[in-house]
Amino acid sequence: MSDGMNDVYVVGIGQTAVSEHWDLSLRDLAVESIIRSIKDADIDKKSIGALYVGNMLAGETAEQEHLGALIADHAGLLPIDATHVESACSSGADAFRRAFLHIKSGEIGCALACGVEQMTSVLTPKATVGLAGATDADYEVAHGFSFVAINALLTKRYLHENHIKYEDLALFPVNAHRNGISNPYAMYRKEISVKAVLKGSLICDPITIFDSSPICDGSAACILMDEATLEKSSIPKDNCVRVLASACATDTLTLYDREDPLVLKGSKISAEKAYKIAKIEPKDIDFFEVHDAFGILAALSLEACGFAPKGEGWKLAKEGQIAIDGEIPICTMGGLKARGHPVGATGVYQIVECVEQLRGEAGKNEVKDAEIGMAQNFGGSGATVLTHIFGR
Amino acid sequence: MSDGMNDVYVVGIGQTAVSEHWDLSLRDLAVESIIRSIKDADIDKKSIGALYVGNMLAGETAEQEHLGALIADHAGLLPIDATHVESACSSGADAFRRAFLHIKSGEIGCALACGVEQMTSVLTPKATVGLAGATDADYEVAHGFSFVAINALLTKRYLHENHIKYEDLALFPVNAHRNGISNPYAMYRKEISVKAVLKGSLICDPITIFDSSPICDGSAACILMDEATLEKSSIPKDNCVRVLASACATDTLTLYDREDPLVLKGSKISAEKAYKIAKIEPKDIDFFEVHDAFGILAALSLEACGFAPKGEGWKLAKEGQIAIDGEIPICTMGGLKARGHPVGATGVYQIVECVEQLRGEAGKNEVKDAEIGMAQNFGGSGATVLTHIFGR
Repeated sequence: MSDGMNDVYVVGIGQTAVSEHWDLSLRDLAVESIIRSIKDADIDKKSIGALYVGNMLAGETAEQEHLGALIADHAGLLPIDATHVESACSSGADAFRRAFLHIKSGEIGCALACGVEQMTSVLTPKATVGLAGATDADYEVAHGFSFVAINALLTKRYLHENHIKYEDLALFPVNAHRNGISNPYAMYRKEISVKAVLKGSLICDPITIFDSSPICDGSAACILMDEATLEKSSIPKDNCVRVLASACATDTLTLYDREDPLVLKGSKISAEKAYKIAKIEPKDIDFFEVHDAFGILAALSLEACGFAPKGEGWKLAKEGQIAIDGEIPICTMGGLKARGHPVGATGVYQIVECVEQLRGEAGKNEVKDAEIGMAQNFGGSGATVLTHIFGR
Repeated sequence: MSDGMNDVYVVGIGQTAVSEHWDLSLRDLAVESIIRSIKDADIDKKSIGALYVGNMLAGETAEQEHLGALIADHAGLLPIDATHVESACSSGADAFRRAFLHIKSGEIGCALACGVEQMTSVLTPKATVGLAGATDADYEVAHGFSFVAINALLTKRYLHENHIKYEDLALFPVNAHRNGISNPYAMYRKEISVKAVLKGSLICDPITIFDSSPICDGSAACILMDEATLEKSSIPKDNCVRVLASACATDTLTLYDREDPLVLKGSKISAEKAYKIAKIEPKDIDFFEVHDAFGILAALSLEACGFAPKGEGWKLAKEGQIAIDGEIPICTMGGLKARGHPVGATGVYQIVECVEQLRGEAGKNEVKDAEIGMAQNFGGSGATVLTHIFGR
């Protein structure tokens, strides 16, 4: 869908490697990706009208809130309009969406969306407590539900209902790791086997360490611009990727409140909204950056977004259709599993990767002739779902 | 400023009493104000296109993040587009602004902004640690700076530079308490004297308990609608208040980084942006909801927003100009000091109070013939500043 001069483009991207950045503070991490995105767009930072920071855990991990102004200051952007957006693990794509809407309002022509998370600065149990804030503190966490536990339950139910084995889901992390190898920003750049997934340390039965996205640090940033501003700039249009759709839908935080826990209704509604805006169908999507925090979520997303019937998302992995040269390549730069999942930054990483693909900068992971890419970012177990579709 | 059918109105307001709501959970509080706002607007909740939740401390006080989807669920708004906006104590007005921009984007015709905070569910020292997240954790908090300490330093410097006494600033909380008496939602509805302020328990020299906004719980909500949607609805236009301007500016979180700590540059820039959008001057403002977390901030805001020359904001209190019948009435419903300061909700309370004034529903506190009102909400010591101007 094009509405002329009000179309929004991603004109610059920046990212840090996903890693354990013990030498950097939260603000350093954020500023690094911001500077890279400004350099990539080759614009004067004074032309940026607003900053949207996506972050989930800084209150817990750094006792720091108020990241909008803090990061605006350290990126040299004062007195810019700045804020912090949070929707658990979808904070990154959420920040991108709010920046997109701000441009759509016509108030500004250019905005910056930055996702940042630093999780390794605290002990893992504390990070796990923080992450549990994505689900219902009163009704799920109080009963000992950690985030892995929720996904372990979903996995068990999925295996049971569809009469399959854990090894069938293990193909998702195997695919992610294969794609991570060629992504210089990925945390894990080693292939893993199905056997390794099955024999990995048990995190929460049946999920093993090789099926769990890692606790890590990272930051990614995008510069968005409307068509009118873009045309007045010296930015080559070849370097820009158009936002064909931005959508958000919500569902219950708790699994027990859902009609069918194996149907990600938020993901389905969010994707359908986005398809409608972009005037496309799932078959038009050339690659899909999936929120594969655990293999089960990749399978359920593929079903919810219309790429497979209910209970058959796992088959796309089995048949090799999710590989770079498959029908619907997913997690093309390593996904949450291998690139890493610095929670509040993940959604922006996914979008940066869409842009890399559509610019033809994905190197060995380039999806041939890709023209339309989709990214879907989850808060909680699909309680907030942001879908973005991009085109050349 | 009017740009026709794209003008945005506040068509419904709701608030809970600011108090110690030990019997309510965070979600209960939020839902209460939301239901009241929907009832006030008398609309079908299905017509609401997005929910913006302003909150600062739930991660700390309730180990709960992800308030967009959580509150959408409990308010019966699923699968609505929902998110959580945070900029410390300006989270409320920030949520309102993002809802406003969303409507301006043309994507939706109606949005809901809700501010909610529950601070009394944890011990005060923990709330104080959480609040310190509004300033720089690495460079200020690490040196023992609590929020009261920062404002105490500002107060001392202000008294010193302007050769005045603490009793001159004490008139701000005295005014706030006087206005709180007739506000049924205010936490403190008792008059206090200058003497009481001076003799109150010392919180941080020279600030006493009667010059400190309280730790409390509360929630407020606004329904925003564009003109086109409003005209198609059955809402009487008399009940609606037009948003004349929405603006946000930022400054350093740390005081030591500012050219002059006694100039609130963020407040000044934010107000000037808003005046320009609304095409008005300070003299056109009939009342001003000031962020009076401490008396010193009221004085500095009046100066930054052009109501008094530098160093002379205190005189407006001394001369009675800030009273309901004065030249520039402030904190007309009790302000942060007497109505209370449930941090992430405060900005929405201020806006609700502007609407009450402009609708002529402020009772004994009604500012006579008020046509234009302004609300300014601070994150940190004016590091994020949201300014909104409203008109009948």
